Amino acid sequence: MSAPPPEASAGQAALAIICGGGTLPFALADAAVQRGRRVVLFALREWADPQRVAAYPHHWTWIGQFGRFVRLATAEGCRDVAFIGSVTRLPLWRVRPDFKALRLMPQLVKLYRGGDDHLQSGLGRLFEQHGFHLLGPAEIAPELVMPHGPLSARLPGERDRADIARGLAVLKATSPFDIGQAVVVADNRVLALEGPEGTDQTLARVAELRRNRRIPTRDGVGVLVKAAKIGQDHRIDLPVIGPSTIEAAAAAGLAGVAVVAGSTLVAEPGRIAAAADGAGIFVVGVNADGTDR
Amino acid sequence: MSAPPPEASAGQAALAIICGGGTLPFALADAAVQRGRRVVLFALREWADPQRVAAYPHHWTWIGQFGRFVRLATAEGCRDVAFIGSVTRLPLWRVRPDFKALRLMPQLVKLYRGGDDHLQSGLGRLFEQHGFHLLGPAEIAPELVMPHGPLSARLPGERDRADIARGLAVLKATSPFDIGQAVVVADNRVLALEGPEGTDQTLARVAELRRNRRIPTRDGVGVLVKAAKIGQDHRIDLPVIGPSTIEAAAAAGLAGVAVVAGSTLVAEPGRIAAAADGAGIFVVGVNADGTDR
Repeated sequence: MSAPPPEASAGQAALAIICGGGTLPFALADAAVQRGRRVVLFALREWADPQRVAAYPHHWTWIGQFGRFVRLATAEGCRDVAFIGSVTRLPLWRVRPDFKALRLMPQLVKLYRGGDDHLQSGLGRLFEQHGFHLLGPAEIAPELVMPHGPLSARLPGERDRADIARGLAVLKATSPFDIGQAVVVADNRVLALEGPEGTDQTLARVAELRRNRRIPTRDGVGVLVKAAKIGQDHRIDLPVIGPSTIEAAAAAGLAGVAVVAGSTLVAEPGRIAAAADGAGIFVVGVNADGTDR
Repeated sequence: MSAPPPEASAGQAALAIICGGGTLPFALADAAVQRGRRVVLFALREWADPQRVAAYPHHWTWIGQFGRFVRLATAEGCRDVAFIGSVTRLPLWRVRPDFKALRLMPQLVKLYRGGDDHLQSGLGRLFEQHGFHLLGPAEIAPELVMPHGPLSARLPGERDRADIARGLAVLKATSPFDIGQAVVVADNRVLALEGPEGTDQTLARVAELRRNRRIPTRDGVGVLVKAAKIGQDHRIDLPVIGPSTIEAAAAAGLAGVAVVAGSTLVAEPGRIAAAADGAGIFVVGVNADGTDR
């Protein structure tokens, strides 16, 4: 690199990355390091990948050890915090709260009683209250954010565009209920709406419906549509696609995948494009209204 | 019976019952016969139960044999038609249209391209156009319609009532998109929204989420909520509950089942009550706004 990008000169403070499952945390860590920033991973037990975590400065932690996080992150000189990677919702007894977390328990239980949105915006406030600055992945590494237009060689056709528009309308209608971030629409018909099971399981359900001939449309029709919930905290839980999403969409016999550009994270754009082209499906970043420009 | 109920004197014309899967068609046939009415079953191949069909005057038919239905139903002296029982959506090539159906194909394909609602209201018009009078199950046998209040010994508690209200709100929001008729809500959180897979599969998904600890709430929390879609044709596709619904709800660790009174069919109320009391869960008929009076 010739000159450090502007982010590097913004401050010498290390970046704490609270690290859930999947490959996205490491893509974020690499992007921060490339910008000349020191990173410390706070690897969440049960989710973070131990083999990959080992390659970075890190501390292992239970998700409930908030006091430990505050202490260690302060000692490491971290001011900025990013929370990234998949974390499925746990029963409270597996959170393993430490003393500080226990004192915050009434607040945390209230967050737990709501849906994911409550939990996320509440977590954001919690970090701010303890003097940390919560950054979204897009603020640290814009290259991890889905761009407008296609990643694939194939482009959506007219029927696909109608399915994308319907999918976005469904997600808009269900957004207040904090249900899911993904829906599958084929030839104007909603085949599945994602719940806590996640996108890959939702696509597996569509594949099974097809096997059981519960879907009238033929293979190669249908789109997976993902969008952030309205009002969702973009620093914490943006929708994500990765190569496995593309493979699952292909296995479900879909024509392609459409996500909202600018508010979807892309773990490995190169591998996603290769997987899409290998399967002959499209991957496209669209506006929240369904247009792709 | 001392005197025939009023329905019997309304006309001597036989009732044609187009008969899908499940036990509901036979409950309807029995109710009509008890009222002194002659019934002829048009048993749909691949769905109707052959053993039970054999006990009634019947003709076997493919769902696409509309011309054959018109001819046979006319010959049998049927004027009134009821369409009842589960029929999952088929690929068009398994419909086996006869000549009359082929002539109606452009109309039928258009119905198929929409969701279930389009298909149902379109079918209603089709029967009327050919001189038949389409009756809803509730018009023939009000005792098959879910009443207000509980069928079970157990009653919903305060948290359950909140879950019921949220479930009804979700179904209202998704109604325009013709998605499903059922949702599972636990402690204010939406766990699953039914798609083409049906209620039992939706509940199986919740049971699996619980087994995999993807749900934070403990066993015994959560409600299955079912409601007819807004504008749905009540003569054709009302939501249905049966004993298997109750068993699946219990297996998913729910507190109970709430359906909209007056617009949900109940296949076997006695067996449903026994199944609910055996499992210790509630079954309640509520208003569309969530109140049970």
